[in-house]
Amino acid sequence: MAPGPGTGSLPGDGKVGVWGRRRAAGSAPPLARFLLPGLAGGAVGPASRPAPRRQPPGQRAMSADWFRRRFLPRGPLPAPRPPRPRASPVPYRRPRFLRGSGSSSGTADASRRPEARPVRSPVRGRSLPWNAGYAEIINAEKSEFNEDQAACGKLCIRRCEFGVEEDQEWLTLCSEEFLTGHYWALFDGHGGPAAAILAANTLHSCLRRQLEAVVEGMVATQPPMHLSGRCVCPSDPQFVEEKGIRTEDLVIGALESAFQECDEVIGRELEASGQVGGCTALVAVSLKGKLYVANAGDSRAILVRRDEVRPLSSEFTPETERQRIQQLAFIYPELLAGEFTRLEFPRRLKGDDLGQKVLFRDHHMSGWSYKCVEKSDLKYPLIHGQGRQARLLGTLAVSRGLGDHQLRVLDTNIQLKPFLLSVPQVTVLDMDQLEPQEEDVVVMATDGLWDVLSNEQVARLVQSFLLGNREDPHRFSELAKMLIRNTQGTDDSPAEEGQVSYDDVSVFVIPLHHQGQGHSSH
Amino acid sequence: MAPGPGTGSLPGDGKVGVWGRRRAAGSAPPLARFLLPGLAGGAVGPASRPAPRRQPPGQRAMSADWFRRRFLPRGPLPAPRPPRPRASPVPYRRPRFLRGSGSSSGTADASRRPEARPVRSPVRGRSLPWNAGYAEIINAEKSEFNEDQAACGKLCIRRCEFGVEEDQEWLTLCSEEFLTGHYWALFDGHGGPAAAILAANTLHSCLRRQLEAVVEGMVATQPPMHLSGRCVCPSDPQFVEEKGIRTEDLVIGALESAFQECDEVIGRELEASGQVGGCTALVAVSLKGKLYVANAGDSRAILVRRDEVRPLSSEFTPETERQRIQQLAFIYPELLAGEFTRLEFPRRLKGDDLGQKVLFRDHHMSGWSYKCVEKSDLKYPLIHGQGRQARLLGTLAVSRGLGDHQLRVLDTNIQLKPFLLSVPQVTVLDMDQLEPQEEDVVVMATDGLWDVLSNEQVARLVQSFLLGNREDPHRFSELAKMLIRNTQGTDDSPAEEGQVSYDDVSVFVIPLHHQGQGHSSH
Repeated sequence: MAPGPGTGSLPGDGKVGVWGRRRAAGSAPPLARFLLPGLAGGAVGPASRPAPRRQPPGQRAMSADWFRRRFLPRGPLPAPRPPRPRASPVPYRRPRFLRGSGSSSGTADASRRPEARPVRSPVRGRSLPWNAGYAEIINAEKSEFNEDQAACGKLCIRRCEFGVEEDQEWLTLCSEEFLTGHYWALFDGHGGPAAAILAANTLHSCLRRQLEAVVEGMVATQPPMHLSGRCVCPSDPQFVEEKGIRTEDLVIGALESAFQECDEVIGRELEASGQVGGCTALVAVSLKGKLYVANAGDSRAILVRRDEVRPLSSEFTPETERQRIQQLAFIYPELLAGEFTRLEFPRRLKGDDLGQKVLFRDHHMSGWSYKCVEKSDLKYPLIHGQGRQARLLGTLAVSRGLGDHQLRVLDTNIQLKPFLLSVPQVTVLDMDQLEPQEEDVVVMATDGLWDVLSNEQVARLVQSFLLGNREDPHRFSELAKMLIRNTQGTDDSPAEEGQVSYDDVSVFVIPLHHQGQGHSSH
Repeated sequence: MAPGPGTGSLPGDGKVGVWGRRRAAGSAPPLARFLLPGLAGGAVGPASRPAPRRQPPGQRAMSADWFRRRFLPRGPLPAPRPPRPRASPVPYRRPRFLRGSGSSSGTADASRRPEARPVRSPVRGRSLPWNAGYAEIINAEKSEFNEDQAACGKLCIRRCEFGVEEDQEWLTLCSEEFLTGHYWALFDGHGGPAAAILAANTLHSCLRRQLEAVVEGMVATQPPMHLSGRCVCPSDPQFVEEKGIRTEDLVIGALESAFQECDEVIGRELEASGQVGGCTALVAVSLKGKLYVANAGDSRAILVRRDEVRPLSSEFTPETERQRIQQLAFIYPELLAGEFTRLEFPRRLKGDDLGQKVLFRDHHMSGWSYKCVEKSDLKYPLIHGQGRQARLLGTLAVSRGLGDHQLRVLDTNIQLKPFLLSVPQVTVLDMDQLEPQEEDVVVMATDGLWDVLSNEQVARLVQSFLLGNREDPHRFSELAKMLIRNTQGTDDSPAEEGQVSYDDVSVFVIPLHHQGQGHSSH
């Protein structure tokens, strides 16, 4: 059952790639091929240097020293050895809310044929929070397992208890015993399904814990300077007011910390079970009249209204985060081990380019300029390729996400993890201000959908479907299924412009009407 | 004539500040006061460690090693000594195009009284590029000199010559011998006027040089992979096309490089003349039918049309660049010399806060969270204060600009320069797409204007003035003067909401109608 890393992934297709066999730009790359460790006949496994027993918690102990210890050890690294699993592997599964929804082809099915891939969604009668719709489809033989995962549910935030008497007194002033919200999440795995499964099992717990750690600050109109509510300085409320700190900033902070905590959990769990892999994470959380969308990776959420399409997330890829990634390589050139060049060129350079002036960009540049090509510019580029083909260190198509702690460039000790961020970008939708109408929904989906359909195409499909299906109580589920069928090009509603997705695709459709208004969502 | 650094600057008023005497948040700061070196009775001058003879050119030789050598020397730093000037000081002056515009009060005038401060603009008959309007006013006794500077003119870009025959042949295919554009620039100095004067004297030359270095790439429809135009790889045009590299990216790259080059020139010149100081830079350049606005600092440019107000720049301050600055301190904690804390709190912490959980933010956080206060959190914050009071290392109100190579936190060797960027953010206005109408203008001004008037207030003043003054050939100059009078609260058109600017204020009003269209501006 233990999925091998990157099993069967097609070059340039999955998130973890093989060095572009696409139109090669001339000479061979300095590194023979870039594959996931473990792919090349098992000879190269993830390095087994034991990770520090206590990884640093997200926002507290992490320091530059820690970064240096973790990623810039002195002296040569020990040769990577296969890991010695100390725990059983993470079992493969589909989302819990799909239980009873039918065919075995939803789980791993070796005999699955592409044309037989079914669109799966929860059984009628099992309703998701806010009557949200969900549907998924497994990829076309790209990997044995569906590497997407999903989770959703109610989020119950308990109040922490204080030991000090005066704090106790303050606590009793607040009437609510719990804060409740809702949670929807999509995880798009790469290099195996394990990280996405762990994220689906874990992230909501991390978020609950992080929210509980600050919930005392969330019940007041404005977060108090001191979590205890005590005023050490009489003008503390004024300082908080001047900084413009609002309750939603605590939720954003909690989401940022939860993603980091979850990343650490995944790192420990994968190391213990001897597995590898990573995943993107896209999360929507409703809390106190607001909808928070947190994104780390290349999934996407959009708001669709009758006359509006609004992106609620942006994608994090080697292309969109070029300057951050190049800057890190500028600061720590050791991370490239002399094998890659930090600079961006329109194509891989070759011997004939030596001495010529060619277009290039460095970390501090938004524009382009020309430089005289030196020998070191012929190295493989830190970021290479465009659009869906863009790869970090020839290996990875996303620049934020969870996991990948052991991921290295094939046949080298060059790590990907230092360049990856687990912290999400969070956008906030104020439901009270929005005054959602009957057909207003949030569509969340993994990149398999967005590779084939634009925001506007999805919005048109959503708008016309909902207008034509006003009475169906299961219409959001049907809408999610319809969107997925539109990526397959085989249905009565074929993919527009003839594009077809061979990737895993997972979709949530979250209706906003009558939801989340007032100060305690239900 | 040599201006002393920060002469007479009021605490919290100028860009270089004194540690906030504003509502103090409790205990005294660990460093007695933060002032410009040289301000405290001349005992402390700028450090005289000789800079490397050849500073690294902008985008080429600069490396992490260089950064470490420059900013992170091993062992204790030599104590700062007064500089030994090797060149005469930069003479004070007003912009050249103000010559003949009258009163001696426009130049430094010790007997100047606040109520006598005149609004200056070019004499009638001297027209600026595109018939742009300009006006300025000196601050209300904040400093002896007007620390703002301005420059404008025609930008003539010559073609480089190639030595190789085949390149020559390619060159002759292009009919234009020169590219011409126009240039408007505002520089807001701090710590003395020298850096702003040098920038006004120098930046346009740097830009011309940088543009001339890539002009061969600008004459083609799309920049060629090789500057020579030779195709080393047959599909080179396709690679450039796929990356979406356009002519305007070369201009953006040239602006980025020019700012960096100018910063290096200023560093050398100030060191040679034993002067100090820095400045912001806001530049508008028209070239081939586009208007480029490059900004490093807290000046601002907006587009005003009959029914639209569009920001063309954003400000770079310790607040807006918090995460970048905190991250640098996270990577190089040595830069804080144990005297500052990287973390942001709503106010300066004090002894009573120890052990309490208080609101905080670190470099990776957009949201806020709570942390338990430790002793190191009581240090003075890397970034402190809000809005106009926000200061970097208790000293500087801007985070991008030119100069400040010698700037240190008072009585310490802690340098500001590592945290400052000279690279601007560039926005592009496509004049062909815009189809400018009669009343469409760009308003560029130093922060003195924007501290008192919002974008919308300026837009309303501009719109109503231009509607009422359609025939006056000098109306853009009159408009610039009117805007400045609106910051003074003494005119017949007093500042709205009773706000008055005591800062230097400089304004360009650039009319867009009939300008810049077609592929060679005039």
